[in-house]
Amino acid sequence: MSITTSIIPQLAAAKMASRAINRLEDNSRKKLTSSIAIALRAHTQGILLANQQDLLAMQKANPLYDRLQLTPERITAIADATAMMATLEDPSGKKLSETTHLNGLKIEKITVPLGVVGAIYEARPNVTVDISVLCLRSGNAVVLKGGSDAHHTNLFLVQLMQEVLTSNGLPAETITLLPPQREAVAELLTATRYIDVIIPRGSQGLIDFVRKNATVPTIETGAGVCHTYVHEKADLAKAAAIVVNAKTQRPSVCNALDTLLVDEKVAADFLPLLIPGFLPFNEGVYADEKAFAILSQKGYANLNHANEDDFGREYLSQNCSVKTVNGVTEALEHIARYSSRHSEAIITEDVAVAETFLHEVDAAAVYHNASTRFTDGGEFGLGAELGISTQKLHARGPFALEKLVCEKWVVRGAGQVR
Amino acid sequence: MSITTSIIPQLAAAKMASRAINRLEDNSRKKLTSSIAIALRAHTQGILLANQQDLLAMQKANPLYDRLQLTPERITAIADATAMMATLEDPSGKKLSETTHLNGLKIEKITVPLGVVGAIYEARPNVTVDISVLCLRSGNAVVLKGGSDAHHTNLFLVQLMQEVLTSNGLPAETITLLPPQREAVAELLTATRYIDVIIPRGSQGLIDFVRKNATVPTIETGAGVCHTYVHEKADLAKAAAIVVNAKTQRPSVCNALDTLLVDEKVAADFLPLLIPGFLPFNEGVYADEKAFAILSQKGYANLNHANEDDFGREYLSQNCSVKTVNGVTEALEHIARYSSRHSEAIITEDVAVAETFLHEVDAAAVYHNASTRFTDGGEFGLGAELGISTQKLHARGPFALEKLVCEKWVVRGAGQVR
Repeated sequence: MSITTSIIPQLAAAKMASRAINRLEDNSRKKLTSSIAIALRAHTQGILLANQQDLLAMQKANPLYDRLQLTPERITAIADATAMMATLEDPSGKKLSETTHLNGLKIEKITVPLGVVGAIYEARPNVTVDISVLCLRSGNAVVLKGGSDAHHTNLFLVQLMQEVLTSNGLPAETITLLPPQREAVAELLTATRYIDVIIPRGSQGLIDFVRKNATVPTIETGAGVCHTYVHEKADLAKAAAIVVNAKTQRPSVCNALDTLLVDEKVAADFLPLLIPGFLPFNEGVYADEKAFAILSQKGYANLNHANEDDFGREYLSQNCSVKTVNGVTEALEHIARYSSRHSEAIITEDVAVAETFLHEVDAAAVYHNASTRFTDGGEFGLGAELGISTQKLHARGPFALEKLVCEKWVVRGAGQVR
Repeated sequence: MSITTSIIPQLAAAKMASRAINRLEDNSRKKLTSSIAIALRAHTQGILLANQQDLLAMQKANPLYDRLQLTPERITAIADATAMMATLEDPSGKKLSETTHLNGLKIEKITVPLGVVGAIYEARPNVTVDISVLCLRSGNAVVLKGGSDAHHTNLFLVQLMQEVLTSNGLPAETITLLPPQREAVAELLTATRYIDVIIPRGSQGLIDFVRKNATVPTIETGAGVCHTYVHEKADLAKAAAIVVNAKTQRPSVCNALDTLLVDEKVAADFLPLLIPGFLPFNEGVYADEKAFAILSQKGYANLNHANEDDFGREYLSQNCSVKTVNGVTEALEHIARYSSRHSEAIITEDVAVAETFLHEVDAAAVYHNASTRFTDGGEFGLGAELGISTQKLHARGPFALEKLVCEKWVVRGAGQVR
């Protein structure tokens, strides 16, 4: 396909296809989802061959190589996740409110599929299946713009899912894969006539590009600059276990700890408790004056003086910053200033202070006496998710199946006029 | 204020103020709302004088003059609407879900204020009060960018409301009025650090400008291209009453009828029924071949042959277009192609056909046997509204107090780690 070819005909076909999947009953959508899981398992060899074509074009040293690579185990995991989605409750067709007007009109607000979801993501073939299945399951069509590095794999996966669609009497265009050229993105981002919502999934650069250029409404899944605040009335042993977990259990993810705030009244007692947990893992700690003094006195090695830009920074590594504060007010100010509004925690045995923190911190998820690592669709009981939304409209926190719908007012009358 | 002065310090102060109004309990917010209503009544003369300054700068023939002009009656109406808002239920602090993780974590999803709402609108001083009070009532701060033609009036109204705020111990910046210069808009639209949502309210030109330039998430209240479809099994007398009402009761609003679709099997019987209702009001009908033949044979005078662009057009006047269709499928195709997804109706006595229509039409509000004129916050039981949202995310249909909140996950633990 020439890069000058418009994708508008593809988007129009996807829009038309969205009417067919909207018409499909939930049981049929469940069956479709299960059939895709079966097809994925049955075609493991074909998927691996297609994936091999993409892998051959990439250097093994490329940090994207591991994300691009599929293995029999990974394909099984994708198929298992797909089969699980068949068991989830349908988010569409739910009655949200029901009233009767004085004139007798019956006014209902219900959930309905969004229509056509546009997904823009990088070279991760599992996302191709995850997003497609979440969309089908909730009655939506989907238009995929995956990373060009994964195009052979994506093409095979999409054709496989399209065969399941057509053999169930649905248009293949219900799942539409766009050409890998970048030019397709610009058209997709402004196709308000055909695309109902855009979901960018990937690096901050990708998300910023989408935010700047999209006129179609978007749901962003943003970075996590996460704080844990150890209050003066914290149980220090509990606090240490939580902080070590939040930082070290999986540091590459968005809900891992970036900045530890500790009350100056307990800093000298608390920070040394971290050293056993931190030392084997951490590459470096960026500490303010007081924390630096305490940690260096205890012989902690990987220590740096924190600069202004060490706060409000998403580390995505074993590194973190540490700041002492003189109480909950300063902790709240710091979080208001530096947080990306993802996940924020307070550790304290003082319930009143904890409730103030939970009420006043502006974030998708706020915690009392627990690790921020729990911000996750599965942990929150929502099933598979598309990411953690740090924006405020429509979806906030884990963005899962339940949010792939919108509202519709349905009014039934007997001739009423105004 | 110089037009080169940045508004960022004002936006930062509004952000800080949003934390105080978020902290305020609902009873205090109710009291604040009532106090504003009292202040508006007490300062009617001052408001009129300020308004007079704006009116003197505008030609009376300007179509905006009437919207800009306040009268004692209009001020009373604004104060009454404000007093009514004190009686509405608080949309924040509602528990949306509650689960207990297997590990004992208590996970709640609650509603919380959005934070800072940015409002961009034209020279309508009533909007200054409406939006401010809706925001305060729901625990939000608000940043107002009103039309420059109304700046003296807006300044007086905002200072009046700010006096109520400060005498109740709240920061004046909870309601922030931006300078009237256009330059302020560009900064507001991209201030993602300080503004949580932008609400544009006004012409399609204003909304398109905001959509194109905003990086802050927006909630659009768009145009209404509304259809009413008269099915072959319609009660024709009922259908005529509904169609006449939808077109003529208040043609200047977004939920008024733009295109009448009529089944060709009943067109010859139905269209003449409209003539008594339409003739005294209508300026012109744009009819397709078959409808033209029927109406001209009956002596209808204001008749034009419909062109392609007479469909999908928002008339906002007594004009409309009429098209004959060969059944519900063609009606659905026409609506899918031309609708702005605002309000769409079917008139029929066949319940199965009606349910198909209600399910398949993609619009904020769908009707069976009723006038589309009912799409309105008040009529739907939501109270005052900021407009009708025709987008799908967050708010769809009447955008009222209940949607000035977002979600927050609150997690309470006892030391849980992952």
